[in-house]
Parts: sequence; structure tokens; C-alpha cells
Amino acid sequence: MNPNALRLRPALIAAALTLLLWFVVPVPTGVKPNAWHLLALFIGTIAAIIGKAMPIGAISVLAIALVALTGVTSEQPGPAIADALSGFANPLIWLIGLSIMISRGLLKTGLGARIGYYFISLFGRRTLGVAYALGLSELVLAPVTPSNTARGGGIMHPIMRSIAHSFGSEPNDGTAGKIGRYLALVNYQSNPITSAMFITATAPNPLVVKFVAEATGAKISLTWTTWALAMFLPGLAAMLLMPLVLYWLYPPEIKDTHNARDFAREKLHALGPIKRSEKILLGVFAYLLLLWAGVPEWIFGSKYAVDPTAAALSGLGLLLLTGVLEWDDILAEKSAWDTIVWFSALVMMATYLNKLGLIGWFSKTLQGGIVHLGLGWVGAVALLIVVYLYAHYFFASTTAHITAMFGAFYAAGIALGAPPMFYALLLAAVSSIMMTLTHYATGTSPIIFGSGYVTLGQWWTAGFVLSVVNLLVWLLVGGVWWKLLGYW
Amino acid sequence: MNPNALRLRPALIAAALTLLLWFVVPVPTGVKPNAWHLLALFIGTIAAIIGKAMPIGAISVLAIALVALTGVTSEQPGPAIADALSGFANPLIWLIGLSIMISRGLLKTGLGARIGYYFISLFGRRTLGVAYALGLSELVLAPVTPSNTARGGGIMHPIMRSIAHSFGSEPNDGTAGKIGRYLALVNYQSNPITSAMFITATAPNPLVVKFVAEATGAKISLTWTTWALAMFLPGLAAMLLMPLVLYWLYPPEIKDTHNARDFAREKLHALGPIKRSEKILLGVFAYLLLLWAGVPEWIFGSKYAVDPTAAALSGLGLLLLTGVLEWDDILAEKSAWDTIVWFSALVMMATYLNKLGLIGWFSKTLQGGIVHLGLGWVGAVALLIVVYLYAHYFFASTTAHITAMFGAFYAAGIALGAPPMFYALLLAAVSSIMMTLTHYATGTSPIIFGSGYVTLGQWWTAGFVLSVVNLLVWLLVGGVWWKLLGYW
Repeated sequence: MNPNALRLRPALIAAALTLLLWFVVPVPTGVKPNAWHLLALFIGTIAAIIGKAMPIGAISVLAIALVALTGVTSEQPGPAIADALSGFANPLIWLIGLSIMISRGLLKTGLGARIGYYFISLFGRRTLGVAYALGLSELVLAPVTPSNTARGGGIMHPIMRSIAHSFGSEPNDGTAGKIGRYLALVNYQSNPITSAMFITATAPNPLVVKFVAEATGAKISLTWTTWALAMFLPGLAAMLLMPLVLYWLYPPEIKDTHNARDFAREKLHALGPIKRSEKILLGVFAYLLLLWAGVPEWIFGSKYAVDPTAAALSGLGLLLLTGVLEWDDILAEKSAWDTIVWFSALVMMATYLNKLGLIGWFSKTLQGGIVHLGLGWVGAVALLIVVYLYAHYFFASTTAHITAMFGAFYAAGIALGAPPMFYALLLAAVSSIMMTLTHYATGTSPIIFGSGYVTLGQWWTAGFVLSVVNLLVWLLVGGVWWKLLGYW
Repeated sequence: MNPNALRLRPALIAAALTLLLWFVVPVPTGVKPNAWHLLALFIGTIAAIIGKAMPIGAISVLAIALVALTGVTSEQPGPAIADALSGFANPLIWLIGLSIMISRGLLKTGLGARIGYYFISLFGRRTLGVAYALGLSELVLAPVTPSNTARGGGIMHPIMRSIAHSFGSEPNDGTAGKIGRYLALVNYQSNPITSAMFITATAPNPLVVKFVAEATGAKISLTWTTWALAMFLPGLAAMLLMPLVLYWLYPPEIKDTHNARDFAREKLHALGPIKRSEKILLGVFAYLLLLWAGVPEWIFGSKYAVDPTAAALSGLGLLLLTGVLEWDDILAEKSAWDTIVWFSALVMMATYLNKLGLIGWFSKTLQGGIVHLGLGWVGAVALLIVVYLYAHYFFASTTAHITAMFGAFYAAGIALGAPPMFYALLLAAVSSIMMTLTHYATGTSPIIFGSGYVTLGQWWTAGFVLSVVNLLVWLLVGGVWWKLLGYW
């Protein structure tokens, strides 16, 4: 069956859902009608994507068109087209698109394969060894890459792909199950864990610090070392568990990769000395890592801070200038253009759901409801954490989610009696754990999902399971660890 | 030679120009340093494009990176990345990109070839006949297509390509000179002329009406019919001359196309009855034409106005829904992605040159200079018109140009004694004539230039020659016609 064609049943379900919410379900009090209508379009879009009514890019074109034509982003009639297209100017979108384009170089120059073979020659006795090697690399990079997208999608993902490729496991020819699917899931699920472990491991963590300080009248001020110390043990435990959980959930067909070590060493030998193009690419990766880690800012002060997307633009520019990549390679990189279109549509809709107050209304309604339930602080915190975590099904950015909900949810919890430091650390961890859930949860997701090793169903299943595992690890290991540290 | 590779000499010239302007040439009084630095980047970018230092898309990536890294768009240090990427959310950019994607359907379904053969069977005795048929079609569409890009790039260009294709004249295999280059130039140069002829033939014409009314204290109010009547004779004369001028400048190798009429009739016969996909495509074009012409607005009022880009999005959505185009066709349409990138870079830079006051400074300096020259009104108007027209080498949008300069240049002219109605009509015409000049002058330009029949040198030469021809036609034919009408 043609994967590009319209599938009638999911398309009709998506349309029916949208029409039902738009015309039949009454708009709740406190919600602007246009916000509700945007929710109808958003839910219809997500339903069409989940039901694979059409390719996700085609659905996105329709979604952007409907937002522009209906003008739901504003209560005033006016140029809704600017709102509808706003996602395309979002730096996060381009950080993703550019990362995909840059990572093309690892394939083209052969450097990716070289790194892959090197990893296998070191850790490749078993598939689990390869998985832990990936997780370890993420962990080492995490303190210095505030862009979790650059880390998991730009650096680690091409390496993971090279390893899978060297085992003959490709996304679309029925061989994904050999090892590629498992490694892609490990690659992705390392990202939420490492993001939770350092203030500098994902962009919005400093926001969390700010919200906690504000809500407690600056009584709790999370420093870089407090955070790192608090998250160290639960983070390590989660990182040790995750590859095992995925191994059980989606066992790779290739388990013993013993012969692969000799094979990899032979391949490395056959590759010969490193080429000029590989050296330039390594140099550009080092340059990107320095900029993404904020080194110019550390040395020369905040005036010299470099935006991660600007860094990626200049990195791609260097690869084009040196001929490592050619412009035609970029134009032919369909997955980059595809991702730019569909991620722009989702980020745009999520942004306006927040701007129009729908998310705020949702949070407040819930807070009021909890008070009426008359739970103790344990029950209240449990409920708040669960709602905060799973609300991320409606977000395409952790920054947007944290901005919209962290303040209210944190304040509500302390008001209901939660220990401030314990609850702050837990909610901080959950702010990264929520990345596990969907293929649009954070910038890393569309890159790894887009490479095609994992189906939507597998992605969401693994995401849900690991959200539960991670939450329990942080609750139990974290709770005890923080008690020992005297934090509560 | 690899057209993707870096050509060192033009690259060094472009870099030297930028460095010279940035560091050596002193910033003129009244200009903000960052505006001057942006000008340095802009001129370097244009020099690199003209010198073909790299493919235009690669140059654009570097230009956007440099704008983002240097932060020239703002006097304050801050997130310049948002400014640098702002072009990607510009509706005009997407109208262009979407038009390219939609026009793919004419190729895929064969409807384009059918229309081409039909035109040839009617007018195809000589190449000149085909050229006039193209111009006539543009003229008929002009009053109802306020988007000159949709008209010249979205509707007419695919037809022109089909005709060239049917004569075996392709962009990149050495056969462009047979007939394709000539027809592409006629296709493009019809656009400025038709745009000048009706208030509703290009988006910024209503702006001109507004500026003229403001500058004359509402004494001159250009209605739709006044405009159309005033422009009718000079417009018709320009449209009759233009194909002849291009015929002399870039003579097509195929001149007598007599046999082609029988050939075309045979081909039409062989094509058989019109297919389902062609009918849907025709329906979508009719739908787009209705929306672009503003029909919903006329019938239901301004509340139901549909933005042309929103219309194009929904048109593409309809083609995807009906399977006439597939998402993979869109991703494979490299020229669309290429155009979106490079046009975004140029529009972004031109927008900020204007926002930072560089264009305003330039206009005012000139005005002051003219007063000092002590010319009569004829000399002053001549100078103002020439500067206004050729300033368009620095603009990637007529709207931006008109917004930035029309008011000042019109007011200066009347202040220096020009007859208000004569000068208003002349400056209004020049506001469209300036589209002739470059491959980034208006949205139509990158579409037709991007198809590759015309080299950069040929495009700019034809553009300059026709800017002079059109200006003289409007000055002489218009001047006499407007005298007869009693307008001055």
C-alpha cells in the first residue's frame, strides 16, 4: 500500500473529533472560544498523526492551512497567516533541521562508520555493552551541552546509526529489529535522564531554578553543585536500569555481538588513516561542542554568548565552505525538510494553546479540584506530579511546558503541604522525565524518531513505560538519597 | 567543474568588500554602526551571489549565520537568532515556495503539457506569437490576481515551461537557447508591466494610493478606474514592445514554429480526454484564482478576506488530500526548498536594512542633495525617479521598497514643483517597473529564475534594458495620454 496515500478511516475519525469539539462540545467557562477551537484542531491533528491518515508532513500542511484560514490564534480577525507560519522562524526548529543536515557529514565522509566501529571494538562484546557505551557517552557530554537536542540528536544519534548500519540493521527494509530499534530507543531514552542530571544539560533547567526561588521567596536556591549532587544517584540508577527495561520490552535479535569486535577491528584497519574531510568534520564537531557548551561565554562574559542555532548555522556554513558537504547534499536531505515542516506545525499549535491561556486554565481547574478532594500532601503531590508529567502529551517543547505549568504546580504543592526541597527536586526531575513520552516531546525526539527505526506505537509504549520507571526511581532512590543528604 | 564547490576568487572579493565596509570605510553621520555593518554583510552577500562564489543557498546559510553571530540587527546584545531566522516565517516566502510545490502538479499530471500544446495550436505559428499569447494571458489574469507572484510564478510559469519542454528546450542541457530562455524572459517581464496596470494586480499598489492621498492632503485620490484608465495605453504599449526587445536581445533559435501547430494538435489528440487528476488540478487552480482575486471578500465582506499564502497552503492541502500530489513529491522538489532558504536570507537582510533606518537615511541624504543641485522640477523628478527605480537593486520586495521610499520620494518631488497627478502616476508605474531588475526583485523572480533557463548575467541585462524601455514608454506614451485625459 502506498504510504503517501490518504487512509480514509483515520482521516474521518480525526475530522469527526475536530468537528465534535468545535461545534458540539460546549466551550468550558473561563476558556476563550478561539482557544477551544485551536484545541479542536490540535487534537484532530494529533489523531490524524497517530492514525497515520497521511504522511505527517502532509497533515502538517493541512493543519497550518486550517489555523491560517480559521484565524483561531486571535480573537480579532486579522492576519492569522503570520501566526500560522511562526513556527518556521523558531530557532529550536532550525537547530533540529540543521543538526540533521550536519549529521549527513558523518555518513558522507565515513567518519560515522569509523566511530561506530571504534565503539564496537571497545564495548561490542554484547548488545547491552553497546547500549551502556551510548549512555555513558551521553552522560559525559551532558554537563557541557545545554542543548539536549544537539547532544542526543546531533552528536549521539549519528553514532548510533553507524553502529546499527554496521550490523546491517536499517530502518525500512525489515532489519530494524536486529539491533537498530533497540539502540535508537536507548539513544533517545538516555536524553531525558542526562537532561535531569545537570542544570546545564538542557536549556530550560535554569527556568526551574528561577521558579523554585520565586515560589519560596528565595529560601531555596538550587546551585549547580546542589543540583548535580542531588540528581547523581537517582540519575545513575535510571541510566543503569533503562537499557535493561528496553532490552526486556523490545529485545534486539542480535544479542551476542562477540564476533563483531574482531570484525570492527578489521574494518577500522581497512578504513586506513583518517581522511581530510573526516578531520574537518571532527573539527566542526569540536567547534560546535565548544559553542554549545557555552565556552566563549565562560571565558569572555555573557556578551559573547553564542546561540546554539547560530552555532549550528555557522557549523553548516563551515562544512559547505570546506566542501565536506555540498549544497545539493542539503537539498537532497528530505528528512530535514520533512522535520522542519511537521515540527513547525506542532510547535506553532502548542505555542498558541499556551498563549491563548488554555494550558493555564487547565492547570488552575486542576488545582481547585485537588483542594476539593481533601487529600494529604502525599496524595496531592502524587496527583500534581502525574498530571504535570502526562500533560506533556500536549506539548512539543519542554521549555513551553515548564514556562506554562511549573510555577503554578510548584506553588500549589507547597501550599498543600509538600516539603519544598523534596518537591522542587522531584518536579525538576519530572521536567526532564516528561521527554520520554512522545515523538514531539523535545527537539531530540523528531530527529531520532524521524530516522525510522522505531514505529509510533513502539515509541509511545517505550516512552510510557520509561516515564513510570524513571518516576519510581527518582521517587524511591531520590527520596532516600535526599533524606540522607538532609534535604527534607 | 563542480557547480557546488567554492570558487575562491569571487569568495575573496565578497569577503574583502564586507571587511572593507565594516572596518575601513567610516560610518557616515546619521547612520547607526550596526546598520552600516548589516549593509557590509548585505553587499558581501550580493557580491558572492553575483560572483557565484558558491550555490546561492550555501551563501544564504553563511549570511544568516553571520547575521545571527554578529547581532547586527540590533544595537542591544540579545537573541539575534530570532531576527536572523525571521525570513522563514514571512508569508511571501511561503507563497513562493508553495507556488513552486503546487506547480509540480502541472508536470506530474500532464495538464501543463496539455495547456502548452493548446496554446501552441492556437498561436504557435511563430515564436513571437507564443510570446504574445503568454503576455495576453497575464494581462487577462492581472485585474483579478493581486499576487503577481501567484500569477507570473504560480500560473503562467508552468505553462511557459510546458511549451519550452514540448520544443525540447530544457534548462540545463544546452538547449535553453532554442526557445526556453526567450519565453522565460517574456514570462517574467510580463509581470512588471501587468502589475503596473491595475490597483489589484500587485499587493502593494493600494499602498501607493494611500501615500499619494496622504502627501496631497487627499486632493488626489486614485480610484480603481482612474488607475486602470491612466495605465491602459502605456501598459499596452509596453506589453507590445517587450517581446520584440527581448527577441532582439536574446533571439530564440527557433523562430518559425509553423509545423508545431500540427504537431501540437496531434499531441493533444494523443493525450486523449482529460484525466481525473487534471480535472482536480484545474479545480484547485480555479479555487486559488477565486481566493487570490479576493472573491470571498467581495461577496461576504472584509471579515472573509483570505490571505493569499493561506489560500496556497489550503490548495496544496487539497492536492495532497486528493492524491494528485504526494508528500514525497513535495520533499523531492529541491527548487522549492532552495528558494525558501535563499529568499528568506535576502528578505530578512532587506527588511532589517529598512528597519534600522539605512534606507531612510539614504532617501533623506538624496533629497537634501537634490535641493542643493538647484535643478528645475523636470531635472529633480528625473533624478528622483532614477534613484527610486535603481534603489531596487537593494530590495527583495516591492512592498518593502514602496513602504520605505515612496512617501519621501513623492513628497520631495511635489515640494520641488512636480505636477502632483503626473508624478504620482509615474512613480506608481515605476513601483512595478522596478521588478524588471533582479532575480530577487519580487516573488515571481526566484521562481522563474530558479527554473534555470536564464543565466544571472542575461537576467540582469534584460532587466536593465527593459527598465529603461518601460520607463521611456511610460514617460512618453503616459505623459501624452495623461495630458489628453487632462490629468496635468
